[in-house]
Amino acid sequence: MAPQLDTYFKTVDELADQFIDRLRKAVAIPSVSADPDLRPKVVEMGLFLEKELLALGATVEKRYPGEQPGFPGLQLPPIILSRYGSDPKKRTILVYGHYDVQPALKEDGWATDPWVLTVDEKDRMYGRGSTDDKGPVLGWLNAIEAHQKAGIDFPVNLLMCFEGMEEYGSEGLDDLIIAEAKKYFKDADAVCISDNYWLGTEKPCLTYGLRGCSYYSVEVTGPGQDLHSGVYGGTVVEPMTDLVNLLGTLVDNKGKILIEGLSDLVAPLTEEEQSLYGDIAFTMDDLYESLGSKTTIHEKKEEALMARWRYPSLSIHGIEGAFSAPGAKTVIPAKVTAKFSIRTVPNMQPDEVDALVFKHIHKAWEKLNTKNKVKPELMHAGKWWVASPKHWNFSAATKAVQSVFGVTPDFTREGGSIPVTLTFEQATGKNVLLLPMGSSTDAAHSINEKLDKRNYIEGTKLLGSYLHHVAEEPQV
Amino acid sequence: MAPQLDTYFKTVDELADQFIDRLRKAVAIPSVSADPDLRPKVVEMGLFLEKELLALGATVEKRYPGEQPGFPGLQLPPIILSRYGSDPKKRTILVYGHYDVQPALKEDGWATDPWVLTVDEKDRMYGRGSTDDKGPVLGWLNAIEAHQKAGIDFPVNLLMCFEGMEEYGSEGLDDLIIAEAKKYFKDADAVCISDNYWLGTEKPCLTYGLRGCSYYSVEVTGPGQDLHSGVYGGTVVEPMTDLVNLLGTLVDNKGKILIEGLSDLVAPLTEEEQSLYGDIAFTMDDLYESLGSKTTIHEKKEEALMARWRYPSLSIHGIEGAFSAPGAKTVIPAKVTAKFSIRTVPNMQPDEVDALVFKHIHKAWEKLNTKNKVKPELMHAGKWWVASPKHWNFSAATKAVQSVFGVTPDFTREGGSIPVTLTFEQATGKNVLLLPMGSSTDAAHSINEKLDKRNYIEGTKLLGSYLHHVAEEPQV
Repeated sequence: MAPQLDTYFKTVDELADQFIDRLRKAVAIPSVSADPDLRPKVVEMGLFLEKELLALGATVEKRYPGEQPGFPGLQLPPIILSRYGSDPKKRTILVYGHYDVQPALKEDGWATDPWVLTVDEKDRMYGRGSTDDKGPVLGWLNAIEAHQKAGIDFPVNLLMCFEGMEEYGSEGLDDLIIAEAKKYFKDADAVCISDNYWLGTEKPCLTYGLRGCSYYSVEVTGPGQDLHSGVYGGTVVEPMTDLVNLLGTLVDNKGKILIEGLSDLVAPLTEEEQSLYGDIAFTMDDLYESLGSKTTIHEKKEEALMARWRYPSLSIHGIEGAFSAPGAKTVIPAKVTAKFSIRTVPNMQPDEVDALVFKHIHKAWEKLNTKNKVKPELMHAGKWWVASPKHWNFSAATKAVQSVFGVTPDFTREGGSIPVTLTFEQATGKNVLLLPMGSSTDAAHSINEKLDKRNYIEGTKLLGSYLHHVAEEPQV
Repeated sequence: MAPQLDTYFKTVDELADQFIDRLRKAVAIPSVSADPDLRPKVVEMGLFLEKELLALGATVEKRYPGEQPGFPGLQLPPIILSRYGSDPKKRTILVYGHYDVQPALKEDGWATDPWVLTVDEKDRMYGRGSTDDKGPVLGWLNAIEAHQKAGIDFPVNLLMCFEGMEEYGSEGLDDLIIAEAKKYFKDADAVCISDNYWLGTEKPCLTYGLRGCSYYSVEVTGPGQDLHSGVYGGTVVEPMTDLVNLLGTLVDNKGKILIEGLSDLVAPLTEEEQSLYGDIAFTMDDLYESLGSKTTIHEKKEEALMARWRYPSLSIHGIEGAFSAPGAKTVIPAKVTAKFSIRTVPNMQPDEVDALVFKHIHKAWEKLNTKNKVKPELMHAGKWWVASPKHWNFSAATKAVQSVFGVTPDFTREGGSIPVTLTFEQATGKNVLLLPMGSSTDAAHSINEKLDKRNYIEGTKLLGSYLHHVAEEPQV
């Protein structure tokens, strides 16, 4: 029987102003995890969440992961673990979010104070962290409160894990997830993460896949120190010359990765999968708009979506050690280190990728016939993730979207990685669902970050509705 | 008749400690032209020179070129114009030097305080500016003083031009030289600049040629802003991919410039010129030592010297706008600007070089078949310079070296440019000689800059001896 949610939805609407006020209080705390000077504000934000959760009747445990690596004396902010309900007859859902935010300065170009939630005439709510990820985190709290105010029984036991270092590599989180998988998180039946975005602005989506990322450096060295190009140009084998030639062998400007054997690792495209892309609510114009240009590799949306979600890509990010400032400096850099990364997809195993990359580099290097030395290194690797969208966790979310928005959500993957997704899946062994609240125009990580009021309020309905459907969904 | 210089030489030896003390006072003034906060110290150094010159009986005019471009309210230090003697029966020699220095911090790795002249057990005198260019500048003053103390008539009229912005692009100097060519400098018969170095450590040289430098930027643009490689990798034509491919078409790692037509502009090597290189006091081991590696393009000294002095070279200096910091950032840079330069030689005309470079870039760009845009630009061009080493100015210097060091100097060219050389030649129409005082191991611009006591004291003898020979050399 479909859950009766009308009273819940009505209560959320009635409480909308209070929920916006809760978000306003959260945005006012500049919990920038990348700035050691603002660390007290990150902690303050964690304590704000604790207080709100306690007021709602949840239990809270603050976990301090210790000192931040590389910053002696700087303590990491607490990971907030919380439980609301412990009825063994109910399903238990583990949700994750983060309460830290990206840096923001008015002078970066913000139209409004980034730390003051500012609602414009189109009900866009501007403020740092509004969509990434304070809005979604508070959505869970709002859902609890609306149930209480409406007098409706909460349909599941809710486990919450809110961290304060996501924008700085989630320092300390993986260890905690692994350690608590069979303890604090032991009765979790499924995981839900609301920390990504709709593909567009109108249609909600459920996300079931993420690309991985293998990030490499290639160091080229020759002379003992930087040299003056007037004195040494023409006499020394220049590391930059070798490096740009090496980089030119990695990928072409049609996106084709030139590393031998790499494409063989990619799972073949089935007809069934291919048929999925046509229906996705996404157009090339959406892509052009988000790029700020029409310089795309593909002309068709299906090809562009597949290139983003299910095929690998290789990007050259830059070169460390060469002259990178404005102006004209006549240096022959002695040691230059290029950085590039490969976005990986099923079934590329990171160590197989590494082996092919290193083999390619050494082979290309031999061809260069140079006196310089090359040293390629893997800097970090995060594996791709693909969940089963046929799991009851996704079915429940599908019905929740239908009940709130009246449409069937797109099933999407993302090109980027959210490493915690895979950690939760591997540590708990449970299905993980990415259930976004914000839209593609929210400008997370950018200036003028916002969350539309619609996304926040309907999103709060969505999270609650999802929990009701999760409670009723049959085990498959 | 060869001039009798024994008394002069003896007097220089007797005054050695005083001359070293003069250098000590100069080194103690941190006249760093690149640091606006130290501008008063640059001015102080100019006034120190003025005081010393006045004490020696020279006349002095301080010329203030005005405000430093780009630094509102910051006055450029004075150019010190000075004259010693105005006997119409004597030749007039114009000498140039600079009294500003490169930055220096003890913590950069200096073994001693860079602002305290420190003489070690091998009579190496360490201190910022010791060799570049305070030692040579004071050498002219020492020569005057030694003549006075020895009671020897000064053989020429000496015009001096000492600037305080050489290490920051000689701001304001070109205009002054051009303006004064037919005024303050009007009776100059030849020019002598002591601001470069011996090729090695034992044998003096005279320098008669410099390569020019044409410095280019190539901007590649596509997307409207930097992109996340997870989200956009594989869908967008990446500017970095195009740029590294473009850079790969410029030069190979054997130093061969791949720009069509460029080598046709180079003056052919004559048998006579080729025969000169074998005798130069220079070995591949000298080159290996200064490089700190054996990663040279050539194996023979003749080839290496020709590659440095008489053939063009192309160096890729770096890329602006890409990720250049340590660490791993997953950015697709939207706008990347490579910097490269070509060292030019006779008979390459800068505008011909530009035309070939632009043509090459546009042709290579077409081959890339890309949606991105390319914009190559000339950032600056300085022309090569070659003087006639058969002029009496060089003959006099040759005899001076023989009289002080007992050897015939090497005739050298340099790979780098000293733009003021060409300006003096073009503005005055007179022969310019580069007469170095320091040696190849002096580490100008680096930590632990030094001038050997031998180079300073024998160098002072050399400058005085040169003036005597100049006075007697017949007009050719």
